[in-house]
Amino acid sequence: MLTLASDFGSPYPAAMKGVILQRTDAKLVDISHDLPRQDVRASGFWCRETVPYFPPSVHLVVVDPGVGTDRNALIVRAGDHALVGPDNGVLLPSARRIAGARGVELDCFRYEYADPASSTFHGRDVFAPAAAAVHAAGVDAIESLDATAPIESFVPDSPADIVVDCRFPDPEVSAESARGEVLVVDDFGNAITNIPGSFLDGRVGETLSVDGTPATVVTAFADVDAGERLVTVGSHGFVECDVNRGRGDDAFGLAPGDDVRLAAE
Amino acid sequence: MLTLASDFGSPYPAAMKGVILQRTDAKLVDISHDLPRQDVRASGFWCRETVPYFPPSVHLVVVDPGVGTDRNALIVRAGDHALVGPDNGVLLPSARRIAGARGVELDCFRYEYADPASSTFHGRDVFAPAAAAVHAAGVDAIESLDATAPIESFVPDSPADIVVDCRFPDPEVSAESARGEVLVVDDFGNAITNIPGSFLDGRVGETLSVDGTPATVVTAFADVDAGERLVTVGSHGFVECDVNRGRGDDAFGLAPGDDVRLAAE
Amino acid sequence: MLTLASDFGSPYPAAMKGVILQRTDAKLVDISHDLPRQDVRASGFWCRETVPYFPPSVHLVVVDPGVGTDRNALIVRAGDHALVGPDNGVLLPSARRIAGARGVELDCFRYEYADPASSTFHGRDVFAPAAAAVHAAGVDAIESLDATAPIESFVPDSPADIVVDCRFPDPEVSAESARGEVLVVDDFGNAITNIPGSFLDGRVGETLSVDGTPATVVTAFADVDAGERLVTVGSHGFVECDVNRGRGDDAFGLAPGDDVRLAAE
Repeated sequence: MLTLASDFGSPYPAAMKGVILQRTDAKLVDISHDLPRQDVRASGFWCRETVPYFPPSVHLVVVDPGVGTDRNALIVRAGDHALVGPDNGVLLPSARRIAGARGVELDCFRYEYADPASSTFHGRDVFAPAAAAVHAAGVDAIESLDATAPIESFVPDSPADIVVDCRFPDPEVSAESARGEVLVVDDFGNAITNIPGSFLDGRVGETLSVDGTPATVVTAFADVDAGERLVTVGSHGFVECDVNRGRGDDAFGLAPGDDVRLAAE
Repeated sequence: MLTLASDFGSPYPAAMKGVILQRTDAKLVDISHDLPRQDVRASGFWCRETVPYFPPSVHLVVVDPGVGTDRNALIVRAGDHALVGPDNGVLLPSARRIAGARGVELDCFRYEYADPASSTFHGRDVFAPAAAAVHAAGVDAIESLDATAPIESFVPDSPADIVVDCRFPDPEVSAESARGEVLVVDDFGNAITNIPGSFLDGRVGETLSVDGTPATVVTAFADVDAGERLVTVGSHGFVECDVNRGRGDDAFGLAPGDDVRLAAE
Repeated sequence: MLTLASDFGSPYPAAMKGVILQRTDAKLVDISHDLPRQDVRASGFWCRETVPYFPPSVHLVVVDPGVGTDRNALIVRAGDHALVGPDNGVLLPSARRIAGARGVELDCFRYEYADPASSTFHGRDVFAPAAAAVHAAGVDAIESLDATAPIESFVPDSPADIVVDCRFPDPEVSAESARGEVLVVDDFGNAITNIPGSFLDGRVGETLSVDGTPATVVTAFADVDAGERLVTVGSHGFVECDVNRGRGDDAFGLAPGDDVRLAAE
């Protein structure tokens, strides 16, 4: 199985699929091609929330504002999974979650590619062939792939040498209040913060201030009327600022990257 | 085969796919993940217009404004197909069309799920595992699935007891005029009504009034010039109010749920 | 393998998939269902840039503003690939690129279909069954398909007799300047012209005038600061007018079909 994620929209992902299917008979599954455009951290978040649900797979992730520059191309082995993409951090949140759950280390490999490649579409010309090579050889064969692919080599290296990291900010949580950040806004308009859902333990039914705006702590969206503001534990395990059948980002005036403070009213 | 339909946009459907593929080796086909958001009736319409074209499959449909409340989770058996989703009516139009064509009854089963499930993403935590279980066991085994899945049970029940219905409104049709409702507007801007296409029999080439706005009855969009209003029988069998190479919803001022009256000019 | 491309958005493509899967066990891959709506030339461009990357396949392409009129339905054999769609030219750019690379001729077949078909959705009622029939029989069997499918027939004909062509305009290129046309704008806002990338040979680092607006010639987007205008050779091999981490169409005031002139500042 081989999953694909990018910020390419349409139809560029199809060229990657063709390149892959020319080289290996993979079962392809799209994660998304509408990841937040050129936003490495938010895209890393969404991959972390989807990729780990899959059985062992090769995951191709291309959100790559540095395409054509000298950033590395990276293959990360995490447990029985492999992740392929640019070395700008976008692979790391997923890899940590997968590997963390299994107690294994990440192995990172630089992927060196021969010319000719376009300077603007490494998804098609570099990462798709790399992902296909990993899929064809199997995750266990990553270390020896340089012997089988003359125009491609996988260079084992220590993560400390080559890996650009991507970490989410830490929230400040006390018994009375929490200060965090909006990590992403989803397609429903739910503003997903980095505040752990446990902050809402024992508070269901209370009213909290979200940056001064009151909102009810609920279990389900429909626990308040349509159009009403709410705070809940989202499916990611974080506190979300939402509106039942409406958009939380608009109602709370929140966008990705914004600071947000929750406190008792 | 297992089809997926939702109003989730991107990338939430990928988590459902991962959950399914962890449990069963299904061939996945997307119906749409851009169903009209939280609109059960319109989503039920679109599923009815697509799902019955498939060979026998398990169809996962998640348009679920009541997620996390005490609405039931439902599995409907319709002929050789199974439909899995919330018990808010969204499954019923598809199930009726499938079963109706084969002259069989619908069998409905409540799906009971164990904790832990998030309260905001039952697509991932409840319905995807249920659909995977039905796919793995086969449609014929639905009744006995409770023996095979310890954290899940399928509870046979009579439809009258548990099923929330979803029916489309009936139009009023006479020889001279028809009064109906706009059921949905498609991505092209075509305003699809509940007036049966047969109302246009013998009227091709005539001009009709659509709420007072004149439009030509045609067979093909291109039978009028680009930008011109038209009325035709859509691929669903209903009367549509369209514009050749333009948007009918804008030109006629029609939105889903609007009443619409067609009459001779 | 069977690829699908259309301007249908969602959920109409699902009906085509169901129809195909009822008839043949194809591996389905989406090219795009967001091709430029009812724009045959731009859609032909995008298919040409994606379809040839696939291994031998049947490619279903439905961008069909003449649906329901007397335009022909066409099957084009290009090397080991087959393309199925309306005879409005949308298939030809892809077919030429595939066949050109292998030095073979195009074979074109009219596809005749029996009633009943809707007059507004030949993707579902005509082209999907045709593509499924070609897939099931194999590309080599196209000529004899009329014997195997009673409601369908494939009528060999000479391309000169039946094929509506689609060609891209020719640019005017001299040593000092180039005049061309914007063929498409991609989802990133990159304005892709028909000027060959070779016009930029030896000019990296220079400033060019794009219709009077200065822009730097670069290899990679990130060779200029975020928000800066640039000109580069895109992944299609043509000159693109772009903005690093921004939209070139807005910054240069360019839309598909616009003339554009590049010259030394």
